[in-house]
Amino acid sequence: MASACLEGLKPIFKTKSHVVIYPASGTGAWEAALVNTLSPGDRVVIFDSGQFASLWSKMAANLTLKVDAIPGDWRRGADPAALRAKLDQDPQHEIKAVMVVHNETSTGVKSNIAAIRRTLDDAKHPALLLVDTISSLVSMDYRQDEWGVDVTVCGSQKGLMLPPGLSFNAISGKALAASKNSRLPKSYWRWEEMLEPNRKGFFPYTPSTNLLFGLREALTMIEEEGLDNIFKRHDRHGEATRRAVRAWGLEVFAQCPDEFSSSLTAVLVPNGFNEADLRAVVLRKFNMSLGAGLGKVAGKVFRIGHLGYFNDLMLAGTLCGVEMGLELAGVHHQTGGVTAALAYLTDQAQS
Amino acid sequence: MASACLEGLKPIFKTKSHVVIYPASGTGAWEAALVNTLSPGDRVVIFDSGQFASLWSKMAANLTLKVDAIPGDWRRGADPAALRAKLDQDPQHEIKAVMVVHNETSTGVKSNIAAIRRTLDDAKHPALLLVDTISSLVSMDYRQDEWGVDVTVCGSQKGLMLPPGLSFNAISGKALAASKNSRLPKSYWRWEEMLEPNRKGFFPYTPSTNLLFGLREALTMIEEEGLDNIFKRHDRHGEATRRAVRAWGLEVFAQCPDEFSSSLTAVLVPNGFNEADLRAVVLRKFNMSLGAGLGKVAGKVFRIGHLGYFNDLMLAGTLCGVEMGLELAGVHHQTGGVTAALAYLTDQAQS
Amino acid sequence: MASACLEGLKPIFKTKSHVVIYPASGTGAWEAALVNTLSPGDRVVIFDSGQFASLWSKMAANLTLKVDAIPGDWRRGADPAALRAKLDQDPQHEIKAVMVVHNETSTGVKSNIAAIRRTLDDAKHPALLLVDTISSLVSMDYRQDEWGVDVTVCGSQKGLMLPPGLSFNAISGKALAASKNSRLPKSYWRWEEMLEPNRKGFFPYTPSTNLLFGLREALTMIEEEGLDNIFKRHDRHGEATRRAVRAWGLEVFAQCPDEFSSSLTAVLVPNGFNEADLRAVVLRKFNMSLGAGLGKVAGKVFRIGHLGYFNDLMLAGTLCGVEMGLELAGVHHQTGGVTAALAYLTDQAQS
Amino acid sequence: MASACLEGLKPIFKTKSHVVIYPASGTGAWEAALVNTLSPGDRVVIFDSGQFASLWSKMAANLTLKVDAIPGDWRRGADPAALRAKLDQDPQHEIKAVMVVHNETSTGVKSNIAAIRRTLDDAKHPALLLVDTISSLVSMDYRQDEWGVDVTVCGSQKGLMLPPGLSFNAISGKALAASKNSRLPKSYWRWEEMLEPNRKGFFPYTPSTNLLFGLREALTMIEEEGLDNIFKRHDRHGEATRRAVRAWGLEVFAQCPDEFSSSLTAVLVPNGFNEADLRAVVLRKFNMSLGAGLGKVAGKVFRIGHLGYFNDLMLAGTLCGVEMGLELAGVHHQTGGVTAALAYLTDQAQS
Repeated sequence: MASACLEGLKPIFKTKSHVVIYPASGTGAWEAALVNTLSPGDRVVIFDSGQFASLWSKMAANLTLKVDAIPGDWRRGADPAALRAKLDQDPQHEIKAVMVVHNETSTGVKSNIAAIRRTLDDAKHPALLLVDTISSLVSMDYRQDEWGVDVTVCGSQKGLMLPPGLSFNAISGKALAASKNSRLPKSYWRWEEMLEPNRKGFFPYTPSTNLLFGLREALTMIEEEGLDNIFKRHDRHGEATRRAVRAWGLEVFAQCPDEFSSSLTAVLVPNGFNEADLRAVVLRKFNMSLGAGLGKVAGKVFRIGHLGYFNDLMLAGTLCGVEMGLELAGVHHQTGGVTAALAYLTDQAQS
Repeated sequence: MASACLEGLKPIFKTKSHVVIYPASGTGAWEAALVNTLSPGDRVVIFDSGQFASLWSKMAANLTLKVDAIPGDWRRGADPAALRAKLDQDPQHEIKAVMVVHNETSTGVKSNIAAIRRTLDDAKHPALLLVDTISSLVSMDYRQDEWGVDVTVCGSQKGLMLPPGLSFNAISGKALAASKNSRLPKSYWRWEEMLEPNRKGFFPYTPSTNLLFGLREALTMIEEEGLDNIFKRHDRHGEATRRAVRAWGLEVFAQCPDEFSSSLTAVLVPNGFNEADLRAVVLRKFNMSLGAGLGKVAGKVFRIGHLGYFNDLMLAGTLCGVEMGLELAGVHHQTGGVTAALAYLTDQAQS
Repeated sequence: MASACLEGLKPIFKTKSHVVIYPASGTGAWEAALVNTLSPGDRVVIFDSGQFASLWSKMAANLTLKVDAIPGDWRRGADPAALRAKLDQDPQHEIKAVMVVHNETSTGVKSNIAAIRRTLDDAKHPALLLVDTISSLVSMDYRQDEWGVDVTVCGSQKGLMLPPGLSFNAISGKALAASKNSRLPKSYWRWEEMLEPNRKGFFPYTPSTNLLFGLREALTMIEEEGLDNIFKRHDRHGEATRRAVRAWGLEVFAQCPDEFSSSLTAVLVPNGFNEADLRAVVLRKFNMSLGAGLGKVAGKVFRIGHLGYFNDLMLAGTLCGVEMGLELAGVHHQTGGVTAALAYLTDQAQS
Repeated sequence: MASACLEGLKPIFKTKSHVVIYPASGTGAWEAALVNTLSPGDRVVIFDSGQFASLWSKMAANLTLKVDAIPGDWRRGADPAALRAKLDQDPQHEIKAVMVVHNETSTGVKSNIAAIRRTLDDAKHPALLLVDTISSLVSMDYRQDEWGVDVTVCGSQKGLMLPPGLSFNAISGKALAASKNSRLPKSYWRWEEMLEPNRKGFFPYTPSTNLLFGLREALTMIEEEGLDNIFKRHDRHGEATRRAVRAWGLEVFAQCPDEFSSSLTAVLVPNGFNEADLRAVVLRKFNMSLGAGLGKVAGKVFRIGHLGYFNDLMLAGTLCGVEMGLELAGVHHQTGGVTAALAYLTDQAQS
């Protein structure tokens, strides 16, 4: 079963290289990406694109890395130009890794990983490219090998439709080579001790067996629906949600259309209103948990998730809950969000 | 556990008398109600109020009973006046039982059981009153003892939120007395052989053990929410659905407001349109099964279920699926059904 | 799924004819076999071979049949010679059916169905042959068509390894023809109303859906292990158990080696000892339920089940529980039962 | 639920201090114990008492600690005198921690933690005491506070009867204080970031939610049976197993009676025989997995587990499988092991 899972994950990441599975949540796979490739005091660049980038950044600092954050207002994805500026000021190649969150779960903003890769290539900079796909993998197109990603980080509980408890690193040859010289202390996360037994279908320590059975089934379900169909479904749900948001007269937090997330949508609440009140009403009246505003957008933004094992009517019910919640919580808005979403979904279903 | 289930069911039926549990679907409990109380050739009156009444009627004929059906157009519930006419023409008390479906699953029309009881009482007619509550129990108010019902028939898979496979008879003292003289051959369904071991917590033959564990849990869940709250929830969903239907410009099949079902709503499709086409589209595009038109309303009526383990957002999603389906299937209608339902649900949530 | 289950059951019964599935326990399928083929007052012959034969006999009487029981001491199976005598005294063919329990769950005695068939044939008697295989099907060889059985009765919770709640009739062409003239009132059990919708993959009323999913999986498991391997496994467990019993100095209730059951073994306790005391000790100390002595062997016989999803070590653990229970309960016996069983199992594993 | 789990674990560890829960397997909790308390290059002493001690030792080295192993032949537990010698040679208190495996899963040898504590106290040495209880907690008596343990490491899949995927640190005040000065890089495992949100019932990152529900139920089950009863049950199974082993003429690997494990028993196979062959036969013939000989006892020792959700008859079945396997695999032995175990279990059941 180990082999079925390990091999089955490769097309998911679109890689021919290695994938390892940790009995840990996604945060663990973040740590694995760092401790396997870097050494104490190494300089890393991270785009401060949202709360999870910010937590990953804090983790890097915790792990004694020198973190060089590219600031952002969270409404835009990673900016290749800003990275280029950093790289140009680094002729000594002190920057050892560039960390990007592909899809910020706190903001619903997607970053262009291919563009980041091109920026590194254009600058002829050897830094590793580490990418968090926790809320994008199996929901939006992702291509480890084609985009030249060195380590991709993911978890089990979003696009893979499983309970939390498994996390993953997809590892390029370059990353694996870097791990030979990495001096951050590591043991649980150490790739080489994983890869060796993995080859024979074993794990170096007790894996989360039950979740591996689930993973095998999830991979079968993904194959049955087809990755491209899954992406289309998520794109459709993202667009329907944004149409609802606009019809409500509210603002989608993400500012740039080609950065809209297909797995979740963050929505700005009007000034003077706290999103926590909306979420409280929706939870109490309709037993639905909306995502909170996190970090610097706490109070200002709430989030609607539309990913994983999810279909048009679940989305419709979700948007109905939000629309009723806006009314009940007294958030200034127009009705018509659900109507707009349904019109779009109907149109899409027709084609 | 047998005792917990048997005792726990009594407040559900609002009876202090006996309840028996069959390892069988609801149809089996129909048969039990008849074979325990009647004798070959006995005359029974049944209101032809829908497809399930019609199937129960056919069962009675299969069992060699003389069935005297009170015809109906299925859009109205059992008519006490029509029953009174029958009773008045039966001075010899040849009619041994009156069979009523409390809530017709095929039409969404509820019958007034208390009124039927009063009619029998007013006519001083001793016929037994047998009531099917398969799609009403735990969804709409029901009172075995107060309404003088002699045998109530129910199943596990609707208001009780379980898989199909258990069914029930709640039995009045009068029904139990009648069973002593009943001459329809019976063994599996024979009350007396059930009641005796039940007293000690046993069953006369292998029960559906796994479903009994589920039943015990369902009874706990019902107690936690409270029967009256459950009824209010179903009433709210019924009204929200009807508002959607009217906003679509369609017609609720049930004609009389005090007969509207709270557990499902049947909807007439416009002339020239076959409801099967609507259901096919909704199933294919949204993976939602609507109820088919059954028997004489096949092609004309589709049904929206809103009962059991169900909440406002599930209903909202359901109505969204119907609204989109109407559009996709080309059924002549107006939009605004979902909007109307949400307005009502929002209003109810406010209070 | 209906078709997968219905077709998949045929090789289990070794029939090319019809199989129907009831949402009911095995007792329901007993009733179905009778009410579909017989008419009020019909004479049936049944071998009084144990408690379940006796219950089936009582059911037949309940259903107004005239029951002609062939007495027995329960330690032997159905006696073809005794049947021949009955048949010879019935030149008018008043006997309409012969009822046999293939494997008596109360005694662990198996009857020779092929011999019963030959007896009917030799006597040129047209009575139907109705056989209960509740505790034999998928555990011991059974051949509906080859043995000329007219109705086979079975349930889900033994050889089929499912929870209780489904039961079956396998129906010969002759039985189906008889059903056209049968006058026992019936509706829930009526074959013709089952077979018609079954042809299109439907059921006439709500089936036990969840159990049908289980049945489909059970049929797959049976196919994977192979019926013949399953029979060998049960034979091995039966023999191992009997060797243990003899080593304990106790007596296997079944007297005739070719009638030993492979799915359970009933054991006589020494005079002066009540088997209920043994069972109570084993339940209290080891959380294991042994089968009680039923009917006329209550107090004298306890039963060890070894069927269904069961393997050598489960049997070994079971026998250990019995051996310790015998000691704890003070039943006069010799040790060595487990040792004898293990010797046999080891020997069998070697080959 | 977080609080129910966190508070509920304290009596299990017999501590009033802190417990943290990681979404990780036990190996992760090993790492957490080290990285939270120690700094790069710190010297740690570990008893080389078995394969898991050896793996933990390797982990410490991986994490840049200077590992000072006290050698052992694996048949004895941690030797306080050997520790005392180490401590006496360390007047500068360079040794920062002493690592002990309470119950070696690879050998079935238990170490005396209280004696280790006394040794540290007697030597007035401030080293932290870190203890692995992965295969002992909830199976054998363990007392975090009374024995002065600083960090206890455990996992979910043994005494706690859950699937693998959760692991734990129970943390003394002294360990918590040490963590303030610890300089090993850490983030995922960092106690302070766990304890802060834990106080409010949260986790710093996604927990293994489903396993937490299981943990809550496991804690209820443990409370129902009672810790002392659970220990007695494990003691009984350990003794019964050892009696079987001796009756087979084989040798229990653990040499010292007060170090016998109650959760598993390792057994030496006779010279010239490879335990892998025995395990292969038992797996193939009886579908039972025995534990392999690990590390330096590979080929020489096999292991019988008897812990967690386990009862007398499961143990009996297990021993039957071993006894038959010994015969089938041609391991030189005497029969009678099962008989000896049953005699003991019977005797214990009597009292």
